[in-house]
Amino acid sequence: MATDHQNHPAAPTITEVAAAAGVGRATVARTLGNYGSVSEATRAKVMRAAEKLGYQPNTLARSMTTGVTKTLGIVLADVANPFFSGVLKGISETAKTAGYDAIILSTDEKLELERDAIAVLLAKQVDGLVVASAAGRSDDVSHLSNAIDRGTPVVLIDRLVDKLETDSVVIDNREAARSAVASLIHNGHRRIAFAWGPVTLSPATDLKQMHSILDEALWSDGERLRGYLDALEEAGIPFDTALITHVLKNEGQATRAVSGMLALADPPTAIFTTETEATVGALHSLRAKNLRLLKDVSLIGFDDSPWAAVMDPPLTMIQQPMRQMGAVASQQLIARIDGDTSAPKKHVLPSQLVARSSDGPVRAARGE
Amino acid sequence: MATDHQNHPAAPTITEVAAAAGVGRATVARTLGNYGSVSEATRAKVMRAAEKLGYQPNTLARSMTTGVTKTLGIVLADVANPFFSGVLKGISETAKTAGYDAIILSTDEKLELERDAIAVLLAKQVDGLVVASAAGRSDDVSHLSNAIDRGTPVVLIDRLVDKLETDSVVIDNREAARSAVASLIHNGHRRIAFAWGPVTLSPATDLKQMHSILDEALWSDGERLRGYLDALEEAGIPFDTALITHVLKNEGQATRAVSGMLALADPPTAIFTTETEATVGALHSLRAKNLRLLKDVSLIGFDDSPWAAVMDPPLTMIQQPMRQMGAVASQQLIARIDGDTSAPKKHVLPSQLVARSSDGPVRAARGE
Repeated sequence: MATDHQNHPAAPTITEVAAAAGVGRATVARTLGNYGSVSEATRAKVMRAAEKLGYQPNTLARSMTTGVTKTLGIVLADVANPFFSGVLKGISETAKTAGYDAIILSTDEKLELERDAIAVLLAKQVDGLVVASAAGRSDDVSHLSNAIDRGTPVVLIDRLVDKLETDSVVIDNREAARSAVASLIHNGHRRIAFAWGPVTLSPATDLKQMHSILDEALWSDGERLRGYLDALEEAGIPFDTALITHVLKNEGQATRAVSGMLALADPPTAIFTTETEATVGALHSLRAKNLRLLKDVSLIGFDDSPWAAVMDPPLTMIQQPMRQMGAVASQQLIARIDGDTSAPKKHVLPSQLVARSSDGPVRAARGE
Repeated sequence: MATDHQNHPAAPTITEVAAAAGVGRATVARTLGNYGSVSEATRAKVMRAAEKLGYQPNTLARSMTTGVTKTLGIVLADVANPFFSGVLKGISETAKTAGYDAIILSTDEKLELERDAIAVLLAKQVDGLVVASAAGRSDDVSHLSNAIDRGTPVVLIDRLVDKLETDSVVIDNREAARSAVASLIHNGHRRIAFAWGPVTLSPATDLKQMHSILDEALWSDGERLRGYLDALEEAGIPFDTALITHVLKNEGQATRAVSGMLALADPPTAIFTTETEATVGALHSLRAKNLRLLKDVSLIGFDDSPWAAVMDPPLTMIQQPMRQMGAVASQQLIARIDGDTSAPKKHVLPSQLVARSSDGPVRAARGE
């Protein structure tokens, strides 16, 4: 079986199809490869011959002759994250409509795996790349800049990468976070927990330190924390590092970190979460302390999910246009593949605060 | 840019590397392609030359010479479904460890898209396929049987396909559903709603009709409903078609269908859901009628998710070993690619009923 399948002896070659159709190999390649010009009569002849011989189009062979694989390389931080599976749906739908296939690789938020993934995809000669990069601001991103220099267009999604002049599709994470936190402050909250903060063994002791840590953070994470800090500053609320997580980003760590904050002498009356696992972790810590959403503690977070609407109470969540982000990214990429050489475009799509019932006046939290 | 990237003029060819290393093209191909035998000395020489010239391994070229692409084709019904993203994680991790890349395509539960996807992957000469097929029992599955006959191994995941003698990785859906519904019956429930039932314009009026409809259904869906029917039969509870959805499978339809059941003269006191969207839809219909889980209506469903544990009350859910299913499937596939010609294996992995607090005695539901 193994040998059998390694050289497909059954499958007729382009040469055999050419012979049967009485035309040249190049003509068969153009016809079956759908490139270059072929007269309708010739195309019909070739297709009949190919069908008669049961020809399996070999896109590898075609790629060798045309250099075009009609394949997009998609590098996402974590396909199991609902945000990225939404993005993926948008990418796949748009790519398929345009006649492209998508090779998807997941990097688990690890920059080394991202470098591997890009190398693999370039080696497979994908026509372009959509990348949600795990690169922090000071990380080496030559694996991306080299791809671009080499002529393989790259569209960044969800995260911008400093030093990289290329197309991108994002939301305004800083403003989305600022306005959500501002709405908590508007409801009288002054002690607001933040998860996820940047992962570090030496948490910032003051605002200045925090900003320099943020300069190294993943772009979207940094922007969301900046938005939180903007809202505090507008309201003249002092920065408190004890209310910002610095642990590894998983559900269990979020549960422990938020539980620790709720045990403070001056505990938070509200929680702002930047990601689904942080939200679920925070909800676990509230359950463990028998604290009720809204009545005891308010919560707003990224990203909205179907289940958020059936929680009791339903969760107020920031909704990103995931499918649209994926669609715009692949449209932009395909435009580049088709030769668009205009200046890099930054697509900033609108996010939305879906107001439900997990947030409200701090009075409730004080039991007044 | 487009032309630029279509023939990568910068990238040195195997010929140039061969010249620089002072060896033949075939030797360079074997070395860079990691196949066949090459002496350590020669390998070192080639690698030095390749590095010096900044050679980008071209897997397309390698595939042409070896017929092996080190690529697995993954065809899943819906990557945005948490079950499949869990499976995908297991597949990707295992494939990567074994040095394989995974090309992932999503078919949106449409058999036509599945046929396209298989054709695309065969044309890309993937070494093997993992498929969660959308095929019903009476559907034509020649797109799969042809792949197998052609020598491309296929491992089915999550769903068996009649008439297809090949490896598979599943759970015992019928028994998982039977025991979950039996536990509801054990708590005194006799009116138990079921979502999703088979999609049909003419719902079964009796058990016999239902069984013949099930013979046409998707394997896993059919098995889960059979398990439900087994549990009813064991307890001598009559079949009631009004408690089984027959509408299209999306959250909105589930909400409407379950709301209709809750409005019956003799409404269900428990709900069994076979999929996340059905669960969320059912929870929406309970909210709309101000019915509380456990106290008013019990619920058990597929599949467990992180959020199910933070619902109020937390949901009792059937947990499938998603990552393990993905891992076992790709291990089995790679074994076939490596030449294992033993008889097809059916891997039945254990599922688990995670008991939480969404189900309990029917007394509560009757307010007695």
